[in-house]
Amino acid sequence: MKKIMNRPEDIVREMLEGMSKTHRKLIQVIPGTQAVVRADAPVMGKVAVITGGGSGHEPAHGGFVGKGMLDAALAGAVFCSPPLSDGIAALERCNGGEGALFIVKNYTGDILLFDMLEEEAQDRDIPVKKVLVTDDVAVEEREGTTGRRGVAGTVFVHKIAGAMADRRESLEEVHRVAQKCVDSVRTLGVALSPCIVPGRDKPNFELGADEMELGIGIHGEPGVERTSLRPARELVEGMMDRIVGDLPFRRGQEVAVMVNGMGATPLMELYVIFNEVAKYLDRAGIETYRSYVGEYMTSLEMAGFSITLLALDEELKDLLDHPCETPALTQR
Amino acid sequence: MKKIMNRPEDIVREMLEGMSKTHRKLIQVIPGTQAVVRADAPVMGKVAVITGGGSGHEPAHGGFVGKGMLDAALAGAVFCSPPLSDGIAALERCNGGEGALFIVKNYTGDILLFDMLEEEAQDRDIPVKKVLVTDDVAVEEREGTTGRRGVAGTVFVHKIAGAMADRRESLEEVHRVAQKCVDSVRTLGVALSPCIVPGRDKPNFELGADEMELGIGIHGEPGVERTSLRPARELVEGMMDRIVGDLPFRRGQEVAVMVNGMGATPLMELYVIFNEVAKYLDRAGIETYRSYVGEYMTSLEMAGFSITLLALDEELKDLLDHPCETPALTQR
Repeated sequence: MKKIMNRPEDIVREMLEGMSKTHRKLIQVIPGTQAVVRADAPVMGKVAVITGGGSGHEPAHGGFVGKGMLDAALAGAVFCSPPLSDGIAALERCNGGEGALFIVKNYTGDILLFDMLEEEAQDRDIPVKKVLVTDDVAVEEREGTTGRRGVAGTVFVHKIAGAMADRRESLEEVHRVAQKCVDSVRTLGVALSPCIVPGRDKPNFELGADEMELGIGIHGEPGVERTSLRPARELVEGMMDRIVGDLPFRRGQEVAVMVNGMGATPLMELYVIFNEVAKYLDRAGIETYRSYVGEYMTSLEMAGFSITLLALDEELKDLLDHPCETPALTQR
Repeated sequence: MKKIMNRPEDIVREMLEGMSKTHRKLIQVIPGTQAVVRADAPVMGKVAVITGGGSGHEPAHGGFVGKGMLDAALAGAVFCSPPLSDGIAALERCNGGEGALFIVKNYTGDILLFDMLEEEAQDRDIPVKKVLVTDDVAVEEREGTTGRRGVAGTVFVHKIAGAMADRRESLEEVHRVAQKCVDSVRTLGVALSPCIVPGRDKPNFELGADEMELGIGIHGEPGVERTSLRPARELVEGMMDRIVGDLPFRRGQEVAVMVNGMGATPLMELYVIFNEVAKYLDRAGIETYRSYVGEYMTSLEMAGFSITLLALDEELKDLLDHPCETPALTQR
């Protein structure tokens, strides 16, 4: 696979440089780190909302740093958890005196990082609460496994928690709505092609010319089913059956919908997919309150997409509508 | 190549359905047509800004319909000019009593369409002015050829003309700034992989595993040079030499920059590219006033990107900063 880059070992640092130059009014990178923070950090009197994880999922997470969403996003190497030192730098830079919420995707490395960062926060008398995002319905919950992964639904947690913090609510309240969002969000993805980590020779998995993998993870983790290509309608219906049945989302429920491109799938196809999602929801009597179609949490140049549903109540609707201004999402 | 769709002949209609459902507060599709218009059309007392062209370039152009940018975008079949009847429907729906500006990319079919639409406007006593976008520096100007193509720089023309119309300026004034924008914008693109028109079996061109094509058009038209893959720095410097030398952009000039993904190139790489563009401009003493990195005018799932520079004066800076709210671009 062809990549536009310089040395693979520099790609994340150079990406962050380009990102902070593009959006210099909104974000900055703390010098000597790969931590993206708000240009106006710290915002005093506000809970700091902090997340992080491996790079390769752009615009997640640095693209969601800004007013109304995140205070900081730690960027690791591609598909690797960020270092603790960057977390400490971000925590100190973003500390507005009201504590911090950590939004953690359910991967072993990320959990370990944020556990250690919580200890560092305690040493500094900064109160911390955490939520663990586990929206991927492809993974069966079994004892002895890590359990469900955090995928594109994480972006809704950023939005909801960020809005609550922007309203100067307490850490307890910000944590409460973030946890409600985690409990109400479900995602399922599909891949049509693999991706290649910069500097490696081989793709992270192989797919035949007429194959796709349902339930793929955002790092190419195996899915639940490898099948032949299907028309959009049939594919979406099968995916929606799993997602809707999982929470379950019931008739009369209002939802936010996200159709998220994995990197190489054209916007044209994402809109065709959303059209099928909307038809499914109409038939199921589930009402679409707000929808997002585009690239929010990608896997480098993987072709494929995910569908996320978030069950809304009046509080979550209000927070979803709260204005935000970040590199990847601006709402008025 | 794998596509998520139903029948190829339905893909544009279904895409537009999905798009208008996603952004129902901003846009609508006129029933029985493939014309995307503002949800609140017509806006009385305002010049209507209308464009159009083949589909497959999403978010262009329907994604730029909304307050502060376009009133209407006609969507043809993939890579084909839209029908006149859709143009007439859009013209009538968007007529706010102050005339219309047509933004036309320099392709034979599009020119023909908008010439015919101008005649229809005259029959209806709607004053019309046109601008022809010709920003692709890859094409040599020769007698007897169509000349330079309109590519990603067209999005800047939408932004500038749309802002001027939003300020309720006259058709003459809207046309004047649109033409100034056309005269001041230059683009060069590169492809790393081809794309496949839905329903066809074969890609629109072939590239070797280590090859790229410099100066590619947005429909896969041949470029100026087929070369081997190069590091980002070397590639960008070569492209910038051509772009900067063409206008030319001089030391001290303020510019807007767009690094536009062609469809399958990850945002990570686009930011690495922008980082090299920013360094080049710094060395050249050209000042970046505002920058855009993302997918604005694509070619289905083509991998590659384009770089656009727009020379700014005080008037263009002010119009670029004017707020807009469209599916693909929101500025506060």
